[in-house]
Amino acid sequence: MITKKQVKYIQSLSQKKLRDSEKQFVAEGPKLVEELLSIAHMRPVQLYATAAWLAKSTVKLVPVQEVTEDELQKISFLSTPHQVLGIFAQPAPLATSSNWQLILDGIQDPGNLGTIVRIADWFGVRKIVCSLDTADVYAPKVVQSTMASIARVSVVYADLVDYIKSLQGLSVVGAVLGGKPLATVHVQLPAALVIGNESKGIRPPVLSLLTDSVTIPRVGEAESLNAAVATGILLSHLVTA
Amino acid sequence: MITKKQVKYIQSLSQKKLRDSEKQFVAEGPKLVEELLSIAHMRPVQLYATAAWLAKSTVKLVPVQEVTEDELQKISFLSTPHQVLGIFAQPAPLATSSNWQLILDGIQDPGNLGTIVRIADWFGVRKIVCSLDTADVYAPKVVQSTMASIARVSVVYADLVDYIKSLQGLSVVGAVLGGKPLATVHVQLPAALVIGNESKGIRPPVLSLLTDSVTIPRVGEAESLNAAVATGILLSHLVTA
Repeated sequence: MITKKQVKYIQSLSQKKLRDSEKQFVAEGPKLVEELLSIAHMRPVQLYATAAWLAKSTVKLVPVQEVTEDELQKISFLSTPHQVLGIFAQPAPLATSSNWQLILDGIQDPGNLGTIVRIADWFGVRKIVCSLDTADVYAPKVVQSTMASIARVSVVYADLVDYIKSLQGLSVVGAVLGGKPLATVHVQLPAALVIGNESKGIRPPVLSLLTDSVTIPRVGEAESLNAAVATGILLSHLVTA
Repeated sequence: MITKKQVKYIQSLSQKKLRDSEKQFVAEGPKLVEELLSIAHMRPVQLYATAAWLAKSTVKLVPVQEVTEDELQKISFLSTPHQVLGIFAQPAPLATSSNWQLILDGIQDPGNLGTIVRIADWFGVRKIVCSLDTADVYAPKVVQSTMASIARVSVVYADLVDYIKSLQGLSVVGAVLGGKPLATVHVQLPAALVIGNESKGIRPPVLSLLTDSVTIPRVGEAESLNAAVATGILLSHLVTA
């Protein structure tokens, strides 16, 4: 039996302010929850699971409370809740030293941010630094679309101008319209790739700090590419180049 | 003053069956509607627009009816309607002869399909052939996410096995896990790139018809890439190779 206090607490985690102060986030569904549980440095605070999930689960030493489908519906952020909801502690930033890092200047769409985290994980990019107005990586929609990559990529928030100025000696490559064609760019590593806002691109104060610029050549007529798609294309060429 | 019959008709266009029989679709918002109006072969059937849009519009010879914000809310498929809703005739497939075409085997997510149409348009791919269970390109959510690329890319539906068998002499390259690494693939043109379902990939009857396979090399640990992101990465390497 889930209490009103529990329902209220879980619902409060839909708000960034509460997630920040509690240092927790919500992940849902067997696939995502089980993958997060399998990652050593992820700490589950509390799971809420249906009898169906508990019957086949092998979790040990994890606080689990059984809930009915109706109760799960009450606490879930999904339109179709799915067997288990987990509250996890936000992990501390990982010590990272990959050749590439990503810098996001105002990515607004939660789905785009989650997809970008997943792309970073695919290409072995371990660190993403976001402007303070980028979507919150621990928002429920973002968490779901990262598909557990959130546990393998450190996502931090900072004033980008200060942050980039601190990156002495690093190449800082911006994805812009009218930059160097992707195939002709040769970047000295380590480097950071800067992706701008979905409609406005990279803002002038950040633009002025770039050491290089890059453009995905357009063969056809579309006005632009989706920000996550562009990130994938750029990393696929730059990381494996 | 908009009539009940008009409201009912527009709402009926949310159903594929009605869109198919009427050969029409709905597009919304000034940016998308104005871009579609600017494309010669797109035929607007009826626009519904607020006074604000009409005041700055220069449309001629197009049937427009003024509506209030409240009326627009009633007919819109968007959560935040935006000045103008247009009903357009579905264009006839364009005569196309690009080096590459896309084949989609069961893309389910409307956002993914719309993004793929936009990616195709960016890379000059003029034809997409979809399995019969792929999302409908004229569904309102798909139309909005194509951002007018729907007018420049022909999207048709077919039994993929029959269709691929009809492509005599064409290279048919499938995006699969465990295929040839992208950088090592050399494809004889003209060619088709096959993208599979978001979770199940390409189905066996289609798999057996591939002349080649390709994989995006994974450097990190994510289990998979989003289908639209993968399409973008593959086309960026294959089309400009």
